[in-house]
Amino acid sequence: MNLVSNKISQTPFNGGEVALVGSGPGDPELLTLRALRFIEQAEVTVYDRLVSDEIMALLPEHIEKFYVGKEQAKHCVPQDKINELLLDLARQGKRVLRLKGGDPFIFGRGGEEAQFLLENGISCHTCPGITAASGCTTYAGIPLTHRGVAQGCTFITGHMQNNGQLNLPWQSLACDSQTIVFYMGINTLPVITEQLIKHGRRSDTPVALIRKGTREDQEVYRGILKTLPQLAQKHKITPPTLIIIGDVVNELTSEAVSIPGFLSAQEYAAHLGTDKQVKYA
Amino acid sequence: MNLVSNKISQTPFNGGEVALVGSGPGDPELLTLRALRFIEQAEVTVYDRLVSDEIMALLPEHIEKFYVGKEQAKHCVPQDKINELLLDLARQGKRVLRLKGGDPFIFGRGGEEAQFLLENGISCHTCPGITAASGCTTYAGIPLTHRGVAQGCTFITGHMQNNGQLNLPWQSLACDSQTIVFYMGINTLPVITEQLIKHGRRSDTPVALIRKGTREDQEVYRGILKTLPQLAQKHKITPPTLIIIGDVVNELTSEAVSIPGFLSAQEYAAHLGTDKQVKYA
Ligand SMILES: C[S@@+](CC[C@H](N)C(=O)[O-])C[C@H]1O[C@@H](n2cnc3c(N)ncnc32)[C@H](O)[C@@H]1O
Ligand SMILES: C[S@@+](CC[C@H](N)C(=O)[O-])C[C@H]1O[C@@H](n2cnc3c(N)ncnc32)[C@H](O)[C@@H]1O
Repeated sequence: MNLVSNKISQTPFNGGEVALVGSGPGDPELLTLRALRFIEQAEVTVYDRLVSDEIMALLPEHIEKFYVGKEQAKHCVPQDKINELLLDLARQGKRVLRLKGGDPFIFGRGGEEAQFLLENGISCHTCPGITAASGCTTYAGIPLTHRGVAQGCTFITGHMQNNGQLNLPWQSLACDSQTIVFYMGINTLPVITEQLIKHGRRSDTPVALIRKGTREDQEVYRGILKTLPQLAQKHKITPPTLIIIGDVVNELTSEAVSIPGFLSAQEYAAHLGTDKQVKYA
Repeated sequence: MNLVSNKISQTPFNGGEVALVGSGPGDPELLTLRALRFIEQAEVTVYDRLVSDEIMALLPEHIEKFYVGKEQAKHCVPQDKINELLLDLARQGKRVLRLKGGDPFIFGRGGEEAQFLLENGISCHTCPGITAASGCTTYAGIPLTHRGVAQGCTFITGHMQNNGQLNLPWQSLACDSQTIVFYMGINTLPVITEQLIKHGRRSDTPVALIRKGTREDQEVYRGILKTLPQLAQKHKITPPTLIIIGDVVNELTSEAVSIPGFLSAQEYAAHLGTDKQVKYA
């Protein structure tokens, strides 16, 4: 790292400060140099479930590590407790690393944490990460935008609101020229499918489910909007999974992705013309 | 790098292959480890205008470098010429690095290049980059999503179509609960403003212009939707600039960003309650 670091100007990470750092969707190679610097300089870390083991292994061994993610059947640490923990550690004068999956400011509550810390007199470093929507599609061979196919993309959460409803601007999402990526939408798939079709999205719009994207055990399944819930059922899909909806899904021939992040010309040639609903993992 | 590299499994970059690599919005610290690996292993590179000088300085000195970006008053190299160049270099058996600003698959035409190369028998490595929308907002202290404020975000291009029109799904973009980020929208600002308001977006919706985001000379200007074209005029805004529209713009107190990527508690306290339309760069 030294050779590189020397060429790059960096804001120093001081004691009593918090670094809000995105670690990307899982592949440790998708860490930024900036994230790696904060990881190497941290004196204590507070981390989430979606930070991969390979990335946790890069942390200095001796430092304290607080896990605040949700586990199967257990509750996650409430946000105000996480805020208090960060504040407490910063007040002890430590260099606090707040490590999150993906990007901290895209469904990562990084904004809330920064706000709380600033209000309490703690300065924060911000470090974007490759968000799941970008990393997972790229490693699956799906472009988020594509000339003549998608002139934009929308990231949205399929997480139910507290009232048990999923109130989303369905009309906006039904537009064919936009790629839609749902985070946390596995439990609400039937509603998503129904509402999108009801509001005019073509029922044969290509869709993909990407589970554990960018990781060695990445799974990618393709189908069409109409039968999206069945596709998930058939493959027993559980989180973390991303839902991609839009014509880009089949644009780039992503039959050719048995190695995440590598589009093989051999596989491409071999798969041309075959059924699109194969498992590529 | 060695210490880190050893812990990370990597797909080898072979001669005759092309790596489609995103370099992020400018700060070299936002390169991923994966991007850095391809940069270090490249034998030839084809690069765009938005790849920063600091990043170009990381390339091996002796290798051939083809610039295909647009320059003031000159035309950029047409896409089919770029495709042919990549194919030609790969056929020479070289490890070809295709280096782009931001992410290759978000308004980066990476999908088109991958498609062309695969069709011609060339395998591609894909490497996502921090896209401008994510990096620039994070370094300006603006969260893309925020509980109770924005339940999603949309990236869209403000680039005029060939017919000189800007046909966008305005109705979809007018929804208050979504953050909208326009890439390449500086020349169409009056249309963007007019159409969004006409379709129901609040005329006092907070907006930001971020120029040269994540770079040392980053500029951030805030205002409201109604007077967005004037804001750009007043500050003589030119590309590369990103337009952020949505309530998140003022959510996180980003008065506190005189150093890109650092939210200073001192500045935060000092600026609380002051006029929001200041220049922070
Ligand atoms: C609370 S959100 C966090 C998102 C994160 N801040 C980001 O920018 O990627 C968690 C959701 O992100 C998605 N996700 C994150 N990492 C993923 C991965 N490696 N593969 C598939 N989905 C992923 C899943 O939809 C998961 O339920
Ligand atoms: C052809 S698009 C390329 C986008 C790129 N593929 C990405 O993912 O960021 C070029 C536009 O991206 C935006 N952009 C890229 N880098 C930027 C930066 N550092 N600051 C502000 N805007 C930037 C500007 O709107 C610019 O006109």
